[in-house]
Amino acid sequence: MTQNIAPLGIIGLGTMGRNLALNLADHGVPLVAWERDGALADRARSELPDGTIWATEAADLARRLAAPRAVLLMVTAGAAVDAVIDGLRPHLQAGDVIIDGGNTDAADTARRQKNLAADGIHLIGLGVSGGEEGARRGPALMAGGDPAAWDRIAPMLRSIAARAADGTPCCERMGGGAAGHFVKTVHNGIEYAVMQALAESYDLMRHGLGLEMAAIGETFATWNRGPGGGYLVEIAADVVRTRDSDGAPLLDKVVDRAGQKGTGRWASLAALDLGVAAPSIAEAVFARAVSAARDDRQALAADTPDRVQIAPTDLEAAMRAATLLSFLQGFALIAAADARDGWAVDPVAVAKVWRAGCILRAPLLDRLADAFASLAPGAHPLSAASLRAELAEILPGLRRTAAAAIGAGYAVPALTSALSWHDGMVRARVPADFLQGLRDRFGAHTFERTDAPGSHHADWSGS
Amino acid sequence: MTQNIAPLGIIGLGTMGRNLALNLADHGVPLVAWERDGALADRARSELPDGTIWATEAADLARRLAAPRAVLLMVTAGAAVDAVIDGLRPHLQAGDVIIDGGNTDAADTARRQKNLAADGIHLIGLGVSGGEEGARRGPALMAGGDPAAWDRIAPMLRSIAARAADGTPCCERMGGGAAGHFVKTVHNGIEYAVMQALAESYDLMRHGLGLEMAAIGETFATWNRGPGGGYLVEIAADVVRTRDSDGAPLLDKVVDRAGQKGTGRWASLAALDLGVAAPSIAEAVFARAVSAARDDRQALAADTPDRVQIAPTDLEAAMRAATLLSFLQGFALIAAADARDGWAVDPVAVAKVWRAGCILRAPLLDRLADAFASLAPGAHPLSAASLRAELAEILPGLRRTAAAAIGAGYAVPALTSALSWHDGMVRARVPADFLQGLRDRFGAHTFERTDAPGSHHADWSGS
Repeated sequence: MTQNIAPLGIIGLGTMGRNLALNLADHGVPLVAWERDGALADRARSELPDGTIWATEAADLARRLAAPRAVLLMVTAGAAVDAVIDGLRPHLQAGDVIIDGGNTDAADTARRQKNLAADGIHLIGLGVSGGEEGARRGPALMAGGDPAAWDRIAPMLRSIAARAADGTPCCERMGGGAAGHFVKTVHNGIEYAVMQALAESYDLMRHGLGLEMAAIGETFATWNRGPGGGYLVEIAADVVRTRDSDGAPLLDKVVDRAGQKGTGRWASLAALDLGVAAPSIAEAVFARAVSAARDDRQALAADTPDRVQIAPTDLEAAMRAATLLSFLQGFALIAAADARDGWAVDPVAVAKVWRAGCILRAPLLDRLADAFASLAPGAHPLSAASLRAELAEILPGLRRTAAAAIGAGYAVPALTSALSWHDGMVRARVPADFLQGLRDRFGAHTFERTDAPGSHHADWSGS
Repeated sequence: MTQNIAPLGIIGLGTMGRNLALNLADHGVPLVAWERDGALADRARSELPDGTIWATEAADLARRLAAPRAVLLMVTAGAAVDAVIDGLRPHLQAGDVIIDGGNTDAADTARRQKNLAADGIHLIGLGVSGGEEGARRGPALMAGGDPAAWDRIAPMLRSIAARAADGTPCCERMGGGAAGHFVKTVHNGIEYAVMQALAESYDLMRHGLGLEMAAIGETFATWNRGPGGGYLVEIAADVVRTRDSDGAPLLDKVVDRAGQKGTGRWASLAALDLGVAAPSIAEAVFARAVSAARDDRQALAADTPDRVQIAPTDLEAAMRAATLLSFLQGFALIAAADARDGWAVDPVAVAKVWRAGCILRAPLLDRLADAFASLAPGAHPLSAASLRAELAEILPGLRRTAAAAIGAGYAVPALTSALSWHDGMVRARVPADFLQGLRDRFGAHTFERTDAPGSHHADWSGS
């Protein structure tokens, strides 16, 4: 006879799984836990409370869960998720819910949801942001999938989530299907873009303005107290101030080759697939690729660019504008995926769920939530009066900063791509008419006319 | 009994296939032709010489070819290629060669090559550039696959290819496997980037300098006579000069929404997959996405940016520099794919094959071929003395142009992304150390040290 019934199972007790489990235990959620790896299981067992039920296999885990069951997977994204689902499936029944809390590609989630639906089993794709610390103390949780299935499990997850300043848990269903994992992918893409803009600001302060690390740290700290503050700016101040054991700045001992775990790339691929412009995300990925070409860079090394005149207020404005415009590109990406897949994502909910717990948390998210709430249906975010006013204040600083940097030889792809995206989006007429003329000239690709319907082809010989 | 034996079969007589067939016929290559569509077959039959042998099905086509057979497929890339290969395969034997002359994704070509190799059948992936006119009068042909198979069919294809100024046919095996189709994909990606840079130049002349179309046409024509000339610059002059029946510039009646057939996107996806920076290609794709968001742009429309001071020589230099740097990004992309797949691509051969027949043809290709030939093994193209000298001459103009454009509100993503790529690649130290510090701070992603081996994790609390 089966004993020890709990409302939630968790499979995978690596760093993220263990920390979420500890967080759930803190909030009184009884768990059935299963971890195949002996060392990881031992560690989790020593940290989790005595009431935790330990399962020895999939069937055992399923038996010890109250029906309809809810099982949170915290295993490495990819083939491991398929393997665990395949092992679990025979022991589940219609109405049960699997929650995938991994960094899963939204396309995989959509595929698995469809597959599991044949047995009436729900899969909730759950984006978990905030890293190890967030998982333990309060992550941002972005869910996607069946609303009734979500409503059943949401209270447990809400209890462990970070809370915004107004007390709202950052734990929300973003929409149907793979919306949760897609929103998480875009979160990470924006994170790439904002980090790259911060890196460019750092470079300009260090070499363009010739500031010492202490002064750069003070600048980031000052920005953090202003409207452009946020978690990444806050830790930027800490990072530049950190010293090695010999008292020298630790950053100067760090190899200038940035790694990636792929989610910035996923967001860029999604933008290309959807035909949506997300240049600041892609440029950030490419900047990491340039950093990775370190041997080439060292062989090609020219002199460090000269000092450059940039007003500190302009640099702060540049950072704020690049950040805001990167967010708007990310929201456009979510809207395009939603238009294709029909998830019914509310951008206000996305902005709100990012207000705490995640890497992108910042006061800007409140302003974005308000701006989205103010929009007429179908209106572009850049048309929100509050954002237009904010941009009117900070765009001139971005323009001056980027122009000065370019002139002096500093690579500022995050700053310039954000600016070009904005400047293209607010042009009633862009020179794509010229592109169409060229394409019709060399490839007879035809073009549309402003004054007549249909496709046209012309003799573009210029005579 | 089988009669009418020819050395080359051709399947697919749409626009490209028919024009290649006519070109082959002009050069005395006897053909067995097969086209399933009655109307297309009738048209081709009326234009091709009497000696052409007409096949009625795959078996018939195979019977009428001298062994080892060579069959050129000119069918729409994708599933149609698989279907035709499947139909043809039972009638082929070991040593026969299929040539896919479509705009095929290199990954598909690699897959098909592997599959056909089981029967000893060779597949040559053939990139064909130059559009309809090139196919008829002399295309650039970029092949990939087995060298012996290529040697057997190369004379027929060489006879119809465009010829560089020195008389060399622009028809070459780029390397093994899918090298030909990949080089063609990158060709098209560079084409996107160069066209976007031209469009930005056009926009700056039209609105920034306030020039009339006639003056813009004269400027492009002047550029075309200089070191930055080339086919795209040449037709740019024609396109801006073309007038509608009412005498107004035709471009002004063209809808400013640029289409795409996907190869720029493929090149960008390949760059992301390979972890290589090709920002000018991706920015060009995103600029088309911005153009496609025409309803949003019209709703958001701000005033056209003000006039801007740019010296005409600076604008020419900007165009030249953006073009050169876009080419170098493309070559880096080819080198990275080659390093992964082992095609043994010679960049000199790539530069030479693009000298005539293709959309990118330009005197710059001769300079690039010379520069690549001068490089020590493994050296980055930016280290070639001739290119450094050329860049020293034109980069200042790109800097001034991009800075002025940005300051005034013009979107110039092709110009700025080329510049940032360059400025990153020549920095011995980029601020990716800062990115690594952030990543280690929020996600314990670890970092490498310049003064010690291994992976490190630090307390980045700044105290």
